[in-house]
Formats: sequence, structure tokens, C-alpha cells
Amino acid sequence: MASYRVFSRVVAYQRCLMGSSLVPRMTTRLMSGVSPQFEEAKAKLTTLKEDPGNEVKLKMYALFKQSTSGPVTTKRPGMIDFVGRAKWDAWNTLGTMTQEQAQAAYIDLVASLVQAESGAAAEEAESGQKYKCLLVTCEGGLRKITLNRPSKKNAITVEMYNEWVAALKEAAEDPGTVVTAITGAGDYYCSGNDLSNFMGIDPSNMQEYSKKSGELLYGFVSAFIEFPKPLVAVVNGPAIGVSVTVMGLFDAVYASDKATFNTPFSNLGQSPEGCSSYTFPRLMGPAKASELLLFNKKITAHQACELGLVTDVFPEASMQQEVWPKLQSFAKLPVKSLVYSKALTRDVEKDMLHKVNRAECDRLVERWTSEDCINAIMNFFSRKN
Amino acid sequence: MASYRVFSRVVAYQRCLMGSSLVPRMTTRLMSGVSPQFEEAKAKLTTLKEDPGNEVKLKMYALFKQSTSGPVTTKRPGMIDFVGRAKWDAWNTLGTMTQEQAQAAYIDLVASLVQAESGAAAEEAESGQKYKCLLVTCEGGLRKITLNRPSKKNAITVEMYNEWVAALKEAAEDPGTVVTAITGAGDYYCSGNDLSNFMGIDPSNMQEYSKKSGELLYGFVSAFIEFPKPLVAVVNGPAIGVSVTVMGLFDAVYASDKATFNTPFSNLGQSPEGCSSYTFPRLMGPAKASELLLFNKKITAHQACELGLVTDVFPEASMQQEVWPKLQSFAKLPVKSLVYSKALTRDVEKDMLHKVNRAECDRLVERWTSEDCINAIMNFFSRKN
Amino acid sequence: MASYRVFSRVVAYQRCLMGSSLVPRMTTRLMSGVSPQFEEAKAKLTTLKEDPGNEVKLKMYALFKQSTSGPVTTKRPGMIDFVGRAKWDAWNTLGTMTQEQAQAAYIDLVASLVQAESGAAAEEAESGQKYKCLLVTCEGGLRKITLNRPSKKNAITVEMYNEWVAALKEAAEDPGTVVTAITGAGDYYCSGNDLSNFMGIDPSNMQEYSKKSGELLYGFVSAFIEFPKPLVAVVNGPAIGVSVTVMGLFDAVYASDKATFNTPFSNLGQSPEGCSSYTFPRLMGPAKASELLLFNKKITAHQACELGLVTDVFPEASMQQEVWPKLQSFAKLPVKSLVYSKALTRDVEKDMLHKVNRAECDRLVERWTSEDCINAIMNFFSRKN
Repeated sequence: MASYRVFSRVVAYQRCLMGSSLVPRMTTRLMSGVSPQFEEAKAKLTTLKEDPGNEVKLKMYALFKQSTSGPVTTKRPGMIDFVGRAKWDAWNTLGTMTQEQAQAAYIDLVASLVQAESGAAAEEAESGQKYKCLLVTCEGGLRKITLNRPSKKNAITVEMYNEWVAALKEAAEDPGTVVTAITGAGDYYCSGNDLSNFMGIDPSNMQEYSKKSGELLYGFVSAFIEFPKPLVAVVNGPAIGVSVTVMGLFDAVYASDKATFNTPFSNLGQSPEGCSSYTFPRLMGPAKASELLLFNKKITAHQACELGLVTDVFPEASMQQEVWPKLQSFAKLPVKSLVYSKALTRDVEKDMLHKVNRAECDRLVERWTSEDCINAIMNFFSRKN
Repeated sequence: MASYRVFSRVVAYQRCLMGSSLVPRMTTRLMSGVSPQFEEAKAKLTTLKEDPGNEVKLKMYALFKQSTSGPVTTKRPGMIDFVGRAKWDAWNTLGTMTQEQAQAAYIDLVASLVQAESGAAAEEAESGQKYKCLLVTCEGGLRKITLNRPSKKNAITVEMYNEWVAALKEAAEDPGTVVTAITGAGDYYCSGNDLSNFMGIDPSNMQEYSKKSGELLYGFVSAFIEFPKPLVAVVNGPAIGVSVTVMGLFDAVYASDKATFNTPFSNLGQSPEGCSSYTFPRLMGPAKASELLLFNKKITAHQACELGLVTDVFPEASMQQEVWPKLQSFAKLPVKSLVYSKALTRDVEKDMLHKVNRAECDRLVERWTSEDCINAIMNFFSRKN
Repeated sequence: MASYRVFSRVVAYQRCLMGSSLVPRMTTRLMSGVSPQFEEAKAKLTTLKEDPGNEVKLKMYALFKQSTSGPVTTKRPGMIDFVGRAKWDAWNTLGTMTQEQAQAAYIDLVASLVQAESGAAAEEAESGQKYKCLLVTCEGGLRKITLNRPSKKNAITVEMYNEWVAALKEAAEDPGTVVTAITGAGDYYCSGNDLSNFMGIDPSNMQEYSKKSGELLYGFVSAFIEFPKPLVAVVNGPAIGVSVTVMGLFDAVYASDKATFNTPFSNLGQSPEGCSSYTFPRLMGPAKASELLLFNKKITAHQACELGLVTDVFPEASMQQEVWPKLQSFAKLPVKSLVYSKALTRDVEKDMLHKVNRAECDRLVERWTSEDCINAIMNFFSRKN
């Protein structure tokens, strides 16, 4: 079968990349012109226990090279040198980023990985492994929910859907939480529904599985509709599918200038969810919304900001330093004023939002078992080489 | 009567212009630096059977001169030389357009005229003259409805209203149609309601005529509300009145940078239609919508794009080459996903849209027989010199 | 008590400033390079009977110096020279404004003060002192309602709320009024609810007072919801609180580029009014609206224009000359067309707006007696040094 051959090739390529000595080479070279913080980050990197995935490792490699040698000057490796070419490409995407910016980004990235791991470990220790796919912290009224499957671009598995709902419930009920922020670990914000959710389904149970998935999605979106406190997305990188559509239900969306937004429904034979069939046309008008909801257009953070989906855009290098202090200050505001103000806005359309959510999920239950959708997903997996 | 004198003068002027040897002069001169396509277009022009109207002929003249001689360098002819001055002005509006761009535009314009005529002829032959005011084609899932009264700036007569509704019905029902696009033949997209619809009314039957017109408009707008598939406007030039207001019911609007948008309701003693009293404030907020709906502001394509009425703007010279391939690719998407996605968006406000349409039409029935409106239309016809 | 000491210091500072010879010094110096109109304005200034307040006097001083001497070149006075420093700062804010622009602005400012006083006098004479806090004129279909407490930045007292409602009623009923414009006398458009409305309340009657205030606000906002004719805000300077929130109910908002917009609800432990919890998210989407409604963001006129709250922005120096003729031309349009067009837009959401207004006012009645709010207002008064 063609798709198996494709799969084998992908696995081989991945092994090849993961086995390559990216990290050792980075940490043993002597360097000049780097800050102590950079050296420290480099050292911390070796303490990571889990493989952060190829995407992140390539980014790390690129930032390291840019930090220490500046922009790439060598020739692009040939077609056959998979690994060398992928590394060269990653380095090359950094363009004219200065060495100082690259170092700052490198330090941030290492810190986020170390924090994700140690945080997860701490959480695990204290709460008996409450969340497997999320990292949750709360300080000074600000609760931070980090989607924590960086090696899978934070794609949402069934487990992550359930954990996300539980984490929102916890945030809503905790009296110490004023503002809740969602962000992603690693390079991506969230790559949407994990299409592997569709794999391994017994074809004879397809209808039933589809119905169950519809209920899962309905509950997930309801959690956003009903969330009573200020909810903010901190979009650190690309966002896809349902992670984009529910943004219309957030109170603010702060995005990196490297973030992108993509809802490729019709490409996958599907249809909008997350109440986006209602929120997007109201936000930007049907003439703009159709390009996203019907015609699969991928937009940049700046475009999303002009369309009103994003509150504000920050340069990737300084985003973390700019956004979190802002959210910390919001978390000092009187919580009742915030909750009541949000309620005034949300209550008048809550019935409509639930109705839209129901209609969207019902439509998807039909779509998921349609030929359009099954063909599209099969194509997706066979294209993935 | 003053208005008769005005009319005679206009007719005399028009005869003078139409009788002038624009076309022969263009086609007999020897030229260097023009492409074979340009020569071919020039030749095709002589095969046209119908007069394309003065506007188009002046545009043609200007593009021809710009193509062969570059920007105008002669002095503007005096007041009395009506024809020379009109021709000079048309040429002069092309500014610094390069000869290559002018040739491309000239070729496009001739092609659209030839196609309109031959298409109309073919349609006539095949379907027993199905549409007189429209040209309809369908290929690869993309249906193209061209408003085809270029000599009247595609103003909408009673007949054209009915044909437009019929063409939408045909598009909705044809299983081979995925995406439907509306565009205009010649220079204009559409100049709105043909005010000659108001002429020749027996004053004693005014109320009844007004009611009938209200029903005509109600049915026309309903056809847009109910249209189930992606509907796109390709706005090739100025758009006025109802052709603008119904755009709020389209799924996408692609515009030439030469397009303008104008809804001069109160100038004509009238009031908004096409559901614009509902869609425009929701699209752009009342502070912006009022300038259009109450205060007769004419806006450019770029302004309309910022306001969310237009999806995207293209340079006039390349628009046709950029937009149609895009629409052809949209027409390859799974039709059910598109239809269901549109339904999710449209269904929740369909009742409201029909209610708004009814209120707008009822108001216009009153307005059309009001002194405000009658005076404004009489002024319009007497100003037209 | 600390707040009393603060208060004494403020009063002492104000006396010091008001006693200083700003006006005499201005009017006795000999000058070259100023226009006769400028000299005339200077002379008129001495005829003012009421003190226009420190803000306005400082602005006047600054424009005068800029008009006659150009940009400031002296060193900034030291900390202890309160008055000298305040004057220097005012002058310095004019930056590189040319002497011609400064003269024009000076002339305008004097004219507005003289007109406000004489207009008020004339009104008083003719109508038996109809309005104390407003100046109302009507000419050629254009009614101009000027908020006329410049020394208090046009903060809205209970009396001004009532007068504003009465003035809107008068405008609605007067057959000669086509377009109604609201603007502010002096530097500010309106600084919102006069917080002194909260002072001098008997703590044992707090609940009752809060209820009464809720009804006052409900009636005030209802007057905007129900206003049947085109209503335009001419925002000459900073706008705060309820004067901003009701703008979502206006038909057009023209703003000076020096205007700012601020709704600091949660900073004051309060919640949105003026239907802004409904109109703002619909206008700009929740991601943008939350920054204003939840997070106290102050925005510029240009930002407000991008968000759709403002129709258009004008340079401060030319705003008055550009906006009023535009409004005069709008006031020549057929009034019935305008009224019916506005009704089509407003009627479909009038029930919703009244419902939202009610919910917002009920919430504020609760908020005003909350600890959050009382603490915030006490802080406001003690910070005011």
C-alpha cells in the first residue's frame, strides 16, 4: 500500500533527524560574543529528559547558529541530505535576525521547555498527575494554561479535549483566579484537532464514533461559551482549526508576529465549529469571513488583527516580555467588575451561541462520516511526506 | 419645457459623439510597438454589431491612444469642441498608465464586448433567448453571470431584475454549479436601478405601480437571502444603489481598484434596500454605515475593503487574470462542505433578513410616491446634461 | 486626614494659578506678525465674565505664546514654581505647531468661549434660562448642543444629565431640526460622570441614592436609543466614560486628532453603560472591545476610527472649519428620508438595546454600593494632587 511506504519513509527520516547530534554539537563548541544567560540556557538544555520533537529541535538549532554565527552563508545542501537541508532551511528562515535577538529567543525557548518539564513534574508530584497534556500554573490572580504536547504541535487528542475542559472548570471555580490565559509550549500555539483521533476507528462503528466525537466537541465549545472570567489567548505560533475558531469566544487574543491562523474546513470536507459560523461573520463581515470559513485562507497575525480576531500583535523576540506583565496587571483589577462586565456582554447572546454550537456539531457528525471528509483525511495522511 | 430642451441637447451631443469616426480611425492607422494580441483585438472590434455606448467608446479611444502614443501631451480642447474634449478627458484620465498596461486593458475590453455579443448570440441560439440582459456561462463548477447592458452602465430594468432572479434560481438548482460569480460587461459593474423604470408611469396609477415595484424588489433581494451556494461579486467598475446594498448578502466581493461604491438614497429622497439597513451597520458600525446609508458618501474600493464590504482589491490591469483562476480553484472544493458551511452562517439570521427586506420594501413603496422622491428624480433627469 | 491636606494643597495651587496675570500680560504686549482677527480675539477675551478654568487658561496662554513667539525655547522651570512650570508645559505641548496654526486655534478658542457665554446669555434672556449646563443653537436644520462646563471639563452633573435629555427631546420634536450635533466647550469633549455626584451622599441612604442614579442613567441612555433623527458627535477633545459609551448609539462621530477615548470602568470598580456592553463588541469584536470595557485602555482618535467607533478624524487646527460645513450640508437632505432610514436600522434592535440598558443600569446600582467602587472613588479623590 502506497500510504505504508510513505509512512516508513517519514519514520526513517524522523529517526535520522532525531538521532543527529544537534544538541551535543551546540553545547560543546566554544563561543565568543554570547551572554552568560545564553551559556546558562545552553547548559540547561542538556538537562531535558524528554525529546522536544523535531520542529523544536530544528528551531533550537537555527537560533543557536544565528546566535553564534549570524545569518546563514553556506550553500543549501542537496535534495538527498534530508537532515542537513532541514537544518539549513530552519537557519535560513531566521533571515537577518540579529545575534542578540536570536540569543534572546534561544533563551526563551529553552526556558519554556525546562519550565514545561519541571512544571509538569511539580504538578505531577503535588496533584497526582492531574493533567498530562497541559501545564497549569496560577500566580497573583493570573492562571496560565499551557498546551503541552510540543512534539505534536499541541494537536488536541481526546484526552487533551477533556483536560482542557477540566482546566477551564478549575479556573472558573478557583476564587484566586482573576484572568486565565491559554498558550502553547514550543513553536506552535495549537495545530487543532489531532487527526489521529480519526485513526483506528472500527469502520462498522463509524456512526457511533462520530456521534461521540460530536458530543466531545459540543462540551468543549460550551466550556468557552460559559467561561465566566476574562479569557485570553497568548498565541505564540501557528494556530489551526478549532484552536482558531474558539478564539471568537475569548476576551482578548495577543499574538506573536510569527503566528498564523488557518481553518481549512472545506479542504478537509468539513464545516466550521467553535461558533465561528456565527462569531467570524459578526467580527469581520461575511466578505472576509468566507475566505476563512469557506475558502481555507491562512492569514498572518497582522491580518487577523486587522480583522478583529486578534487584539494586538507583538514581535516574537519580545512577546513573552511584553504580554505577561500586561496580563499580570489585568489580574490585579477587581474581579467582580470584570466578571459582571463580561456577563453583560456574553449573557445577551449565550442562548444563540449554544444553538449555533449545537447546529455546528450536528453538521460535523454528518460530515465526519461523509465521503468528502474521509477522502480528504486519507489524502492528508498520504501527502504527509 | 426646460427638461425637453435639455433632453434635445443631450441627444444631439450623443449623436455627434456616436457619429464620430472613433473606430475607423483606430483600426486604419499603422502602428509600431503593439502586440499581435492588440492587433487582433483591434480587428475584432470591427465585427461588433451593437453600439457599446459612448462611455465604452470613449474608454476604448483612450486606451487605444495610450497604447499607441503614451500619455496625452496635447492641450485640452475648448468648451465648444464637445467631442474632442470628451475624448481628450478620457485619454487624460489614464494618467501615466504604461503602453503595455493600456494594451492589456484594451485587449480585455474588446474581448469582453465580443464575448458579451457572441455569448448572447450563442445563448440565444441554444436556449431560445433565455436571457436578454445577462450573459450566463458555466465551466468547471464556476458559473459566471454577466450583467450585459454595457451601453446603459448595466442599469437594472424590470426585465433585468426578473432575469437576475431566474439566473440565481438556475445556479442554485444546477448540480454542476459550485461557485456563482456576478460581474458587469464593459466599464461599470452596475449603475443600480434604471431610473427610466420610473418614467412613463401613468400618474393616476402611481400607488399601484409603486406597490408592484416593491414586490419586484422584495423578490429580488429574497433571491440573494435564499441563495444556498457561495456567491461572489467581481466588481469590475463603479457600483451604485441596489447593486451595492445586496453585496452585504454575498459571500465574497473582489473589486478592481477602479471600482467605486455609492448608495445615494437620501439624495434621491429614498431609503436603503437590499438588507443594507441591517447588514451595513453590522459590518462597519453605525458611525461608518451612516455616511453611506444616510449621507450619500461615495467610497473607493480600498475604503470599501477597509470597511469589510469588499474582500480584496486588485489592480484594474491584472484583476481579470487574478480573480477568475482563484474562483476556479474555489469551484473545485467539495460543494456540500461549502453549502453546509454557508447554511450555518445564513440560517441563524435568515428570518431577520426577510423581516428587514419586508420593512425596507414597504418603506420604499411609501418613498417612491413621496414628494421628496419625485422631486429628486425630476432633478436628476434635468441635471443630466 | 490625609485627603483633606491633599485638598487644601490643590485649592492653594488653583488659587495661585487663577490669580496669576495670564490674561493681562497677553493683552498688553505689543506684537508683530499677528492677524487682525488675532488682535480682535485678544480684545474679546477681556470681555469674558466667567473664569474659563485653569485648563482652558493654560491652553490659551500656550497658544498665545506659540502665536507670537513660536515654540518654547526657555528651560523648564523648577519643581517649586508650580505656575511657571504648568505654563511652560502647556506651551511645550504645542511642539512645532506654526504661528499661523496657533493663531487660528487661539481665535477659535476665544470665539467658542465668547459664544458660549453670549449664547448662554441670549438663551437665558429668550427662554428664561432654559439650560444652565448646555448651549443650544439651531440654524438651517442643524441643531448644535454644546456641553458647556469647560472649567469642569464638561463633567456631567445630575443637572446636566436632565438638561441633555430635555435638549434631545426638544431636538426630536422641533420640525426645523434635521441633524443634531453634540460637542464640548473648551478643551474637553466630556469627562464623563461628574464624580462629585457621589459626594455628599448620606451613607445611610446610599442604596436609595444608587437606585435613583440608576434611573437617571437609564433615562439618559434611553434618550439616545429613541432619538429619531441623525445624531452626530463632534468630539473636540478627550472623552471619558458615559460620553464615550453612548457614542455607539450615534449615527456619526467626527473627532479631532487630539481627542482620546477612555472608559475606565474596572479601574473604578464599575461596569459598562450606554449599551456599550452590546454595541462595542458588535462594532469591533470582543478581542478589541475587552481592552476598552474590561481593561481600561485609553485610545486615540485614530485608533477609535480604525475600530469603527469614530467616523472620521480631523486635524485639530482645521476640524471646526471642516466638520460644521459638512453637517450643514447634511442638514439640507430630505428629513423624512433620513428619519425613515435611521428607523430601519434602529427599529430591529431597539428592544435589545432597552434590555441591555436595563441590565447595565441594574448592575451599576449594585456596583455603586460595592466596596470595589467606593474604594476606587476614594482613591481617585485622594490621588488628585
